[in-house]
Amino acid sequence: MKSLIQKLLAGTLAFALPLTSAQAAEGMWTLDKLPLKKMQAQYGFAPDEAWTQHAQRSALRLAGGCSGSFISPEGLVMTNHHCVRECVQQLSNPQKNFVADGFYAKEQKDEVMCPTIELNRLDEISDVTARVKQATAGMSGADFSKAQKAEQSKIEAECVGDDKARTRCDVVELYHGGVYDLYKYHRFQDARLVFAPDEAIAFFGGDPDNFNFPRYDLDIGLLRAYEDGKPAKVADYFPFSKNGAEAGELTMVLGHPGSTQRQLTIAQLDRYRDLDLIPRLLLGSETRGTLNQYASENAEAARTSEDDRFGVENSLKALKGQLGALLDPAVFNFKRGQETELRGFVNSKPARKKKYGNAWDEIAQAQLAYATFETPYKFIERGNGFSSDYFRFARALVRGAMERNKPNGDRLREYTESALPTLTQRLFSDAPVYPALEKVTLAFSLTKLREYLGADDPFVHEVLAKESPDAMAKRLVDNTKLGDPAVRKALWDGGQAAIDASTDPFILLAKQVDPRARELRKRYENEVEAVEKKNAELLAQARFEKYGTSVYPDATFTLRLSYGEVKGWDEKGTPVPPFTQIAGTFERATGFDPFKQAAGVMAGCARPAEWRPAF
Amino acid sequence: MKSLIQKLLAGTLAFALPLTSAQAAEGMWTLDKLPLKKMQAQYGFAPDEAWTQHAQRSALRLAGGCSGSFISPEGLVMTNHHCVRECVQQLSNPQKNFVADGFYAKEQKDEVMCPTIELNRLDEISDVTARVKQATAGMSGADFSKAQKAEQSKIEAECVGDDKARTRCDVVELYHGGVYDLYKYHRFQDARLVFAPDEAIAFFGGDPDNFNFPRYDLDIGLLRAYEDGKPAKVADYFPFSKNGAEAGELTMVLGHPGSTQRQLTIAQLDRYRDLDLIPRLLLGSETRGTLNQYASENAEAARTSEDDRFGVENSLKALKGQLGALLDPAVFNFKRGQETELRGFVNSKPARKKKYGNAWDEIAQAQLAYATFETPYKFIERGNGFSSDYFRFARALVRGAMERNKPNGDRLREYTESALPTLTQRLFSDAPVYPALEKVTLAFSLTKLREYLGADDPFVHEVLAKESPDAMAKRLVDNTKLGDPAVRKALWDGGQAAIDASTDPFILLAKQVDPRARELRKRYENEVEAVEKKNAELLAQARFEKYGTSVYPDATFTLRLSYGEVKGWDEKGTPVPPFTQIAGTFERATGFDPFKQAAGVMAGCARPAEWRPAF
Repeated sequence: MKSLIQKLLAGTLAFALPLTSAQAAEGMWTLDKLPLKKMQAQYGFAPDEAWTQHAQRSALRLAGGCSGSFISPEGLVMTNHHCVRECVQQLSNPQKNFVADGFYAKEQKDEVMCPTIELNRLDEISDVTARVKQATAGMSGADFSKAQKAEQSKIEAECVGDDKARTRCDVVELYHGGVYDLYKYHRFQDARLVFAPDEAIAFFGGDPDNFNFPRYDLDIGLLRAYEDGKPAKVADYFPFSKNGAEAGELTMVLGHPGSTQRQLTIAQLDRYRDLDLIPRLLLGSETRGTLNQYASENAEAARTSEDDRFGVENSLKALKGQLGALLDPAVFNFKRGQETELRGFVNSKPARKKKYGNAWDEIAQAQLAYATFETPYKFIERGNGFSSDYFRFARALVRGAMERNKPNGDRLREYTESALPTLTQRLFSDAPVYPALEKVTLAFSLTKLREYLGADDPFVHEVLAKESPDAMAKRLVDNTKLGDPAVRKALWDGGQAAIDASTDPFILLAKQVDPRARELRKRYENEVEAVEKKNAELLAQARFEKYGTSVYPDATFTLRLSYGEVKGWDEKGTPVPPFTQIAGTFERATGFDPFKQAAGVMAGCARPAEWRPAF
Repeated sequence: MKSLIQKLLAGTLAFALPLTSAQAAEGMWTLDKLPLKKMQAQYGFAPDEAWTQHAQRSALRLAGGCSGSFISPEGLVMTNHHCVRECVQQLSNPQKNFVADGFYAKEQKDEVMCPTIELNRLDEISDVTARVKQATAGMSGADFSKAQKAEQSKIEAECVGDDKARTRCDVVELYHGGVYDLYKYHRFQDARLVFAPDEAIAFFGGDPDNFNFPRYDLDIGLLRAYEDGKPAKVADYFPFSKNGAEAGELTMVLGHPGSTQRQLTIAQLDRYRDLDLIPRLLLGSETRGTLNQYASENAEAARTSEDDRFGVENSLKALKGQLGALLDPAVFNFKRGQETELRGFVNSKPARKKKYGNAWDEIAQAQLAYATFETPYKFIERGNGFSSDYFRFARALVRGAMERNKPNGDRLREYTESALPTLTQRLFSDAPVYPALEKVTLAFSLTKLREYLGADDPFVHEVLAKESPDAMAKRLVDNTKLGDPAVRKALWDGGQAAIDASTDPFILLAKQVDPRARELRKRYENEVEAVEKKNAELLAQARFEKYGTSVYPDATFTLRLSYGEVKGWDEKGTPVPPFTQIAGTFERATGFDPFKQAAGVMAGCARPAEWRPAF
């Protein structure tokens, strides 16, 4: 298995030292609970408060699911190439493909706003555990779920205050509810593209080399944060080191890993593998085949499906790694050992047993409940059955109208006041929607809806009636007006009356689907999520009693620090040096995508005689 | 889970009562070891020798992987539609699509030979256990493998004698080597298409309804066996019953189920699920997406990929069912219980323990060995990496030349004298190859070869060199002459010299791949298969000691009988009647594929007023 740092570099973490490999000490620590003694003992260095504050405010989160960092006092931001890829594609058109050709703003005036990127800088962490737990004391099921969401929404609204545009507040769960922290972010919604290398060098090696190290590419994208139409001035940033890192040097990596499942119970891991991971891999594999074949039809199909194809391939690689681990008996035995140890600790004292002892069984029961409706839940509520930007717009509009009529605390979490700016940024953006691609993805997902729910399912009958998935997708896409941001804005601003009056076929579909979708979501939140959360809080408590906070919490897309030294490793008997040389790119180049070296790089770099090809 | 009979009807068994459902008593019995007492006790009927002989000689196997039966004294054969589907597609062309339109030979002279169908009628079963076991006594690993294959080839060659064209002899394993039987078949290689309904009614409901019952389609295909250019005269056949079956009636189903895994050890089931089933499902899902999207490009792409798409979807449905079972803890606990029981029996006597006690561990070791090379084995030897008819031709030609220079007993089993007629029938056939489709499947499989083995794998480097999968597939397909059966025949007849002289790009590729492929096959046969077989023989022996032959052997594509009564069942609370009415077809019809009712059927059938639509 790859070390954590390798995964972090490849995945959601972007602040990194490209072209350098580092071996991480195990752990991804929140910045307020760093293992200072361990670091001091192992490396003779432990960050002080000033160091940590500086690092925290230099690091960034891309709200859509990436990490980055400030690298200049004028708001310049560095991130991975795949983190700006969607933006680069959105700025392209049939005449100009910036993904293929690269993008470079020679002057500041040439920087172009990315329609859907939001940057978050973590400014403050405060502990709200007592408040959140107080709100749900003695509750379970639907009551628990409702009360917890209401309290979280309330805390967030109070934190944001009047400055929604610049302030984002998230109540985050750590240790699966052992700790609830309030993360207050500075929100930047005006992020402009500065530089993205051409695909051939930015993603040299493509999917075959993705997640593998060393990788011979220039995996970078530069953005600039703006405020009030001007580059944001920032006091904290990570300057470039002229000399780079050296072998053996202590290195810190900050970033926002998406999610990990290290503190799940065995029952949850079983369910995750069998009911989530494997179905996702199967559906993802079929999607991949569909999209890649679609892309082969013509250049425009290839261009417009580029980010979707990257997305599905990137996640398949990650999920396959997870599956490999979860099929490995050694991993499961290790996890079983951990659970047995904690159970032993809990059962060793009657008071503890009474307090925590039922948690595992209740969680296991919730997994059985989940199994009874997970397929319709994923296809109807979670979007597997309606893979379409138009549908996502329509749902946001239909639900937005309903939810905004409710008190903040009663809303679905993604429609609370503090969440709306992120939602409306995408909804009102002028990012292109591709009707031809929409037909392919919607028809495919409707076909899967019928397949997974069954041709005789009443919901399937209601949605498809006598139409085929292909015909329905074509009819909807050909007749919708939701591709126009002005139309979406008008529907949003018009509220429930506008939605009631709309005859847009996607609005009608989203309305038709909504009651069943909400019903499934409620079941999930009450019968699964609430049971898991309530009991995970107990297990977290039990773990704290036994281990304190010497264990780091599972990743939850919150800022983490990982540390280690710059070091090579051994890959199946082959030593891999800690540094990757640009020479490797030439050696691997074949002239064919994804090993097609960019013309500029090929021409611009001389190739010393002593570089021998590896094959 | 569906009952056995439902699975049999849907899968490889073709003799059946269409539009009737039957509930099977558990079991798929070989005809020489029917559970006569049980049948007599349960149904007051047990087949006598004459009944069994008649049934055996009325049933048929389609050597490519299906079942059928004679239904007239003039060699008329009934089978499932999907069993003649490849033939119907092979007889079609861009101007005339018999799959879509159906095929009907009005007169006998209109019957057309299916290029690649071989029919096998089982004439004799004889027990050769002693001979096969004697040949491997005291051996293991490579010696065991070599000696067993040599003996099997020898037995088969003796059995076939001089009549290769009409006689086929297979040494078959039952009870995983507990019994070796010699199955002597009458071989019919001239099978002509008589009737295949149009797709819309033959496969009404398509993939969504496939494997589901009741199915509202006419899932039938008629062939006729010919000998010496004339319809084969057969004494034994199953006549149609004018009245059909009645509810509660005892029913026998004969057929050739492909393979089951009911006697595998837990270690084998684990390996089967994790290393075979899941990877096949993932690769199959991606293939499905690729082919379906390809088919959507134009009518000719749809026509030429029809049988491939059906094949991958049909097998995905079957494999998903298997995965569901193998992820079900109840199934595994049941299997574990069985294993524990047999282990207990074996360990209860020192002599038995000494004889059989190590078998489980040795089999488990073989699974670990398999894990170290299963990916290259599947991609390089088993064809995952080279999915192309041209490549399969090339491999058969390259290996055919080499193998035919060896003594019969030393050859790869598919090149022994008794196996050659089946191989050459396909090799010399004039069935069309579709270059455009070949490019898609070959490029896809080369891409997967690179993905699964890794871009840095030396074999991948050797095969792809600096070419991309797409470019290589295009170059090979554009330049090969192997689409011409005369070219293939000449290369076959020319032997090693012709192969050495050939510059056909597929011949060159097959030669390039062959050493590594053979090496992997040898490893598989010696380190996995031989260990499994040797120890499975021991476990079979132990089972016989405990259970006798009251347990039926795993399916091995040999003739089996299953019995039960015509009966409805309960599907998730909904009663399903034992008979399916044609009315259901009209109720389900949407006008869109795969619920597009055939025009002829729609027009030809009146629809009584009392039929209400189900939705």
